[in-house]
Amino acid sequence: MTDFPFSFVLPQPNVIPSRVDNHIVRNLSSLKGQFLDQDTYNEMLSKDDSLIYEVYEVKRPEIEGEFLMGISIVHPGKVGKEFYMTKGHYHTVIDTAEIYYCMRGEGFMVMETPEGETCVEPLSPGSVLYVPPRWAHRSICTSRQEDLVTFFAYPGNAGHDYGTIEKLGFRKLVLDGEKGIEIVDNPRFG
Amino acid sequence: MTDFPFSFVLPQPNVIPSRVDNHIVRNLSSLKGQFLDQDTYNEMLSKDDSLIYEVYEVKRPEIEGEFLMGISIVHPGKVGKEFYMTKGHYHTVIDTAEIYYCMRGEGFMVMETPEGETCVEPLSPGSVLYVPPRWAHRSICTSRQEDLVTFFAYPGNAGHDYGTIEKLGFRKLVLDGEKGIEIVDNPRFG
Repeated sequence: MTDFPFSFVLPQPNVIPSRVDNHIVRNLSSLKGQFLDQDTYNEMLSKDDSLIYEVYEVKRPEIEGEFLMGISIVHPGKVGKEFYMTKGHYHTVIDTAEIYYCMRGEGFMVMETPEGETCVEPLSPGSVLYVPPRWAHRSICTSRQEDLVTFFAYPGNAGHDYGTIEKLGFRKLVLDGEKGIEIVDNPRFG
Repeated sequence: MTDFPFSFVLPQPNVIPSRVDNHIVRNLSSLKGQFLDQDTYNEMLSKDDSLIYEVYEVKRPEIEGEFLMGISIVHPGKVGKEFYMTKGHYHTVIDTAEIYYCMRGEGFMVMETPEGETCVEPLSPGSVLYVPPRWAHRSICTSRQEDLVTFFAYPGNAGHDYGTIEKLGFRKLVLDGEKGIEIVDNPRFG
């Protein structure tokens, strides 16, 4: 009998913080209207409301001078050609920044301003991403097998504005093209 | 002839950020009055103004809503029984927090409030330390051979108040005692 190769898991450094005040779970259904390929989205959702991303929050007073922080975990996967991603948001207090530190996996942060400026920055372990004030932001996992894990921190008074993005999505899409990753214009913006 | 053991260095992940706007170097002379054992301090300084710590800053506008960030590197060493440490400071806008993420080495963050509360927290790779608003903070390297390397971020408008701490130092000292690390009261506080 052939002696088959096998694999087992060596314990990795845990990415779930030892202090967690809130665990947010976002499934496919919570991203309704966000993916370009709506037919595939509806077909996938009819079969299973898959887990797309999770956030482990460490809470602090939601006031200026404090930071809210946590770990974001975007799981690998696609809806059609579009990679799994977070809902993305502006800060309600729009003049507030956010810092991301990528711990594991690979992906992109897709960003835009209310004036229509866009920026798509790669994320890989060790990279620190600074999202300046006024930039909406969404993280996207492009790893084939690994989670995109980021540590984030933002001002306690920032707040989240999801509504603006939910209308049309972001101006740039990250797709799994035939020759590799493609960053394209969102056709829903005329 | 005996074939002696030898060592060479495999490249480690670089801890100096790929983007640096300012490099601060603090030598022994800049910590005048901070170490308990002043005789040893003066003797050491008469021989060499040793490098104690360095900061690589990434600058942003110094206004609310932005973050200032960077890497702090405290080198290993002692003045008498007291480990090498940073000057330590309050924020000028005292109601502002700071986040530290320890990347390498081991040490402590020594903290206190204007009301005299004290807190000494260990730092080791992977630990995130939250310094709440109103807490002065100083980092201390207790590794014997390795640098204590931390990534930090604080609000753009926070500012630094070194003067308060320079008068008497912190209320708690971290010493290399005969049976290991000792956290003791600073005798200069009556």
